[in-house]
Amino acid sequence: MEFNPVSEAILRELSSVLGPDNLSTAEAERQLRAQDMSQHEAHLSEVVVWPGSGRQVADVLRIAHDNRVAVTPWGAGSSLEGNPIPLFGGITLSLERMNQIVALHADDFQVTVQPGIGYKDLNQALGTHGLFFAPDPGANASIGGMLANNAAGTRTVKYGATKDNILAMEVALADGRLIHVGSRSVKQSAGYDLLHLFVGSEGTLGVVTEATLKLVPLPNVMSGVVASFTSVAEAIAAVVELRSSGLDIAALEFIDAATSELLSREEGVDWGDNPTLLMEIHAAHAETAELDLALVQEICQAHGAIRFQATTDTAERQKMWHTRHHMFETMRRVFVDYQWQLSDVAVPISQYPALVQFARQALQTRNLPEFMVGHAGDGNLHITTPYQDEAVRQHANQANEEVVLRAIELGGTSTGEHGVGIGKAKFMVREHGETAVDVMRSLKQTLDPHGILNPGKIFVS
Amino acid sequence: MEFNPVSEAILRELSSVLGPDNLSTAEAERQLRAQDMSQHEAHLSEVVVWPGSGRQVADVLRIAHDNRVAVTPWGAGSSLEGNPIPLFGGITLSLERMNQIVALHADDFQVTVQPGIGYKDLNQALGTHGLFFAPDPGANASIGGMLANNAAGTRTVKYGATKDNILAMEVALADGRLIHVGSRSVKQSAGYDLLHLFVGSEGTLGVVTEATLKLVPLPNVMSGVVASFTSVAEAIAAVVELRSSGLDIAALEFIDAATSELLSREEGVDWGDNPTLLMEIHAAHAETAELDLALVQEICQAHGAIRFQATTDTAERQKMWHTRHHMFETMRRVFVDYQWQLSDVAVPISQYPALVQFARQALQTRNLPEFMVGHAGDGNLHITTPYQDEAVRQHANQANEEVVLRAIELGGTSTGEHGVGIGKAKFMVREHGETAVDVMRSLKQTLDPHGILNPGKIFVS
Repeated sequence: MEFNPVSEAILRELSSVLGPDNLSTAEAERQLRAQDMSQHEAHLSEVVVWPGSGRQVADVLRIAHDNRVAVTPWGAGSSLEGNPIPLFGGITLSLERMNQIVALHADDFQVTVQPGIGYKDLNQALGTHGLFFAPDPGANASIGGMLANNAAGTRTVKYGATKDNILAMEVALADGRLIHVGSRSVKQSAGYDLLHLFVGSEGTLGVVTEATLKLVPLPNVMSGVVASFTSVAEAIAAVVELRSSGLDIAALEFIDAATSELLSREEGVDWGDNPTLLMEIHAAHAETAELDLALVQEICQAHGAIRFQATTDTAERQKMWHTRHHMFETMRRVFVDYQWQLSDVAVPISQYPALVQFARQALQTRNLPEFMVGHAGDGNLHITTPYQDEAVRQHANQANEEVVLRAIELGGTSTGEHGVGIGKAKFMVREHGETAVDVMRSLKQTLDPHGILNPGKIFVS
Repeated sequence: MEFNPVSEAILRELSSVLGPDNLSTAEAERQLRAQDMSQHEAHLSEVVVWPGSGRQVADVLRIAHDNRVAVTPWGAGSSLEGNPIPLFGGITLSLERMNQIVALHADDFQVTVQPGIGYKDLNQALGTHGLFFAPDPGANASIGGMLANNAAGTRTVKYGATKDNILAMEVALADGRLIHVGSRSVKQSAGYDLLHLFVGSEGTLGVVTEATLKLVPLPNVMSGVVASFTSVAEAIAAVVELRSSGLDIAALEFIDAATSELLSREEGVDWGDNPTLLMEIHAAHAETAELDLALVQEICQAHGAIRFQATTDTAERQKMWHTRHHMFETMRRVFVDYQWQLSDVAVPISQYPALVQFARQALQTRNLPEFMVGHAGDGNLHITTPYQDEAVRQHANQANEEVVLRAIELGGTSTGEHGVGIGKAKFMVREHGETAVDVMRSLKQTLDPHGILNPGKIFVS
C-alpha cells in the first residue's frame, strides 16, 4: 500500500473544512492516539482531526480519497487488537468531539447518538429514563468503536452483541458520500443489510457518524450469583443446563481457578480457588427472582457446586461485577512493570471444556501462568498473560496462536469480540477460507477503491 | 436485462451435472413454480432444476453465469411479494429436494439444515429434543426462503427475525464459487459480516445451500392472553407499557376491530369487535407464569381493557394461534372468488397508532373494508384487502402505496418481513436514499456481474 504524506496543501484543505481548532499536528496529540490497549507497536499519524458532524467526517474522507492519504478512525482507544493504530501514518480521524445524544426515543426503546459517546456515559444518562444499552465490554469504549469492532461483553448471552443492538446508522463512505442504513423500525426486510456490513468492519469500509441503538428497560430486580465447581467440565455442564432451563440468564461468566484465587486474595471477595461462574439474572418481580435463584441453585448443586452465593442486594452485586470488570487493573497492580498478551477466542459452547483444557496445556507447556476468564454463556474465552521479557512474550504469542487455531478447528472463531485488527489478520483465511476472504476483499475494493480507510487491518497486506 | 434462452446444449450441461431425473422442462412443473402467494402475475421459467447438494447448486449457477441465463431460486412458494417469480424465464432453481437436517447440535442450541426444509417440519423434528426454531411466519415456509426474505412473524418481539437466528451458512455465488459465512460460535468479530449480507438479499447475491440456525429451549410454561380495548391508541399504549415492564412477552399481536369481529363470527372465538391484543408469554415455572399474567392483566386494565382472557391451557392457546395463523384461509372462505392485496409495513412502535389511523382513513376513503392485523410489539402492520374487479384492485394498490409512503415518513419501512420482491422495488430509493441504493447496486455488480441471480427483484430495472 502506497499513500501520500499529509502535505501543507492538504492541511489547509482540512482546516478550511473543519476550522483551525479542529486539527492538530502536535506530537503530543498524535502520541496520545498512537496505540490502543493492546501489545501492538505504536505508530504516529501525521495529523489528528476532530470533525463535528457527519458531513465533516465525509469531507475529510473525500479529501483523503482524492489525495490518496490513509485515514484511521479513533474512538476511545480502548480496543485490544491494534484496531485504531495508524499503521500508515496519514490522518487520525478522531470522533471524540462527536459525543452527544442526538435524540431519545423512550417509547421506542431507542436512542440516537453520535459515535464518540462512551457507552458508560450513555447508560448514565439513560438510567433516569429507566433504560439502558445492553452490550457491556468493560472499558468505557465509544459507541463508534463498539460498532466498528462488534464489541460484546458480559451481557451478550441474553441481549446479544453490539450488532444485535443497532437499528440504523449514518455512514461516511471513503469517497465522501454520506448514506443512511437500517431503519428505526425494528423489523425491516427492505433490500441488502448494509447496516451489518458496516458493523464490525473496523472502519475499513466507512465511518459511522450517527447511530440509533436498541435499548432495554432496566429490570425491576437484578440478582447476582457466584458458584464454584470442582472442574471446568462440571462448571460448563451447569452452563448448558442453565441455558436449557429457560431462565434466560443475563450474564454467565467463567473465572478459572487461578484468577478466582487471585481476585479473592486481592479484592476481598470470597470466590475460593476453583472454577467459578458469575451470573446476573433479571426479573420483572421479586417473587420471580426468588424462583429463578432457587432453580439456579438446584442446577448448580446437581453439578456438584462447592460454593453457591446468591444475592439481590445491589451493593453486593455491584461489588461482584466491579471485581470482574477491574480484573485487568487488579492484575496490573499485582504484576508491576509487566506487559500483557490478551487472547480472545470463542467456540460453540459444547466445545468450551475442550478449549479450556487445550489452553491450559498450551500455557503449562510453556510455564506460563494460567489466567483465564470468559463469557461462558457464549463460549468466549480470554487468556491474560503477563510478561517482562521477549522470550516469555514469544511463548505467550505461540500459546495464543495455538489456541486460536484450536478454536477454529473446534468450529469457533479467532476473535469473539475484539475484532481482527492487526493481530488476527493472519488467521482470516484459516477461519473463513480463501474464497470468502476474496469476497471480503472485493467488497473492500468496491467501497474503498484507493484503500485509504484504516489500512493494514483485517487483511494481510 | 438481456438473457440467453435455455438451449439444448445448456440442458445437456445441466443434466450432466444433476442427472436426468433432477431437471424438467414439463409445463406442469414450471406452472407449479410460476407464482407465489402474492397478487403478482405468474411467469414461466424454461426449466426447473432440483439440485441435491451445495456443489450442484454452485455448478448450476456456474453454467448459468457462463451462458448468461437467468436463475430464480424457489423454496416453498409461500412468499407474498413475488420474490420467487421467474420474471425473465431461464432456470427455476428449486431447493425442494435439499430438505434434510444435516446435524443437530443440541448442547449448542443449534441445528444445521439444508435450505429446502419447512420450518414447521423442522420444529416438529426438534420438539422431541425440547428445542425449537423461533421465527414463525405462519405458512410452512422453507428455511432457505425465510433466510432469503428475512422472514419474521409473531415471535419476533422476543426472539428476533430470521436474521437474528442464523449463525452460519454455505452460499453458492453467481460464478459457481461456494463459500462459508458466519460461524457456529455465537460470538464472532472476525471480518466482514457476509452472513447478514446474504440474509434478506432474496437470492440476488447468492443461494444459501446450508444453514446453521440458533435454537431456543422449549419453554416450560406457555400462556396465552386475549385483551380488547376501546381504541387502537389504548391498545398500543398497553403494548408500550407491557414492553417496558421487563416481561419479555413472546408474541404481542394486534387484531383490529373488523378482523376480531370476523374471526369471532367464523371461528368460534370470543374476541368481540374491538381492537384486540393476542399475547404469548413463556416462563420457566408455573408460579412465574401466574405472576406474569397478573402483571399483564394489571397493565391492560390500566388501559381500560374491556376483555381479558388468560390461559395456561395448551389447547386453548393453540386454538388462539390457529385462529390467528389461519386468518387468511378464513377470509378466503368468507370472500369466495376474491383476489387479495396484502400489505406489509412497519414503523417505530410510538408511531403505530398514527400508522393505523392513517391506514383506516386510506381504506375508508376508498370504501375498502378494514382488515388489519399486525405484530404490534414490532410496529408491523398488515392490511388484507379482498377484491374482485380491476377498479377495486387499483384502489387497494393506491391505498397500499399511500400507507407505504406514510410508514417511511414515520421513520419506518416499506416492508417489515415480506421482502422487496417485485412490489416494493419502487420504494427503495424513497426509503434508503439514492446513494444507499447505489451502494446496494454496486454490491450486486461485484457479486453477480452478469446479473443472472433472481433478476427484476429488489431494484427497479
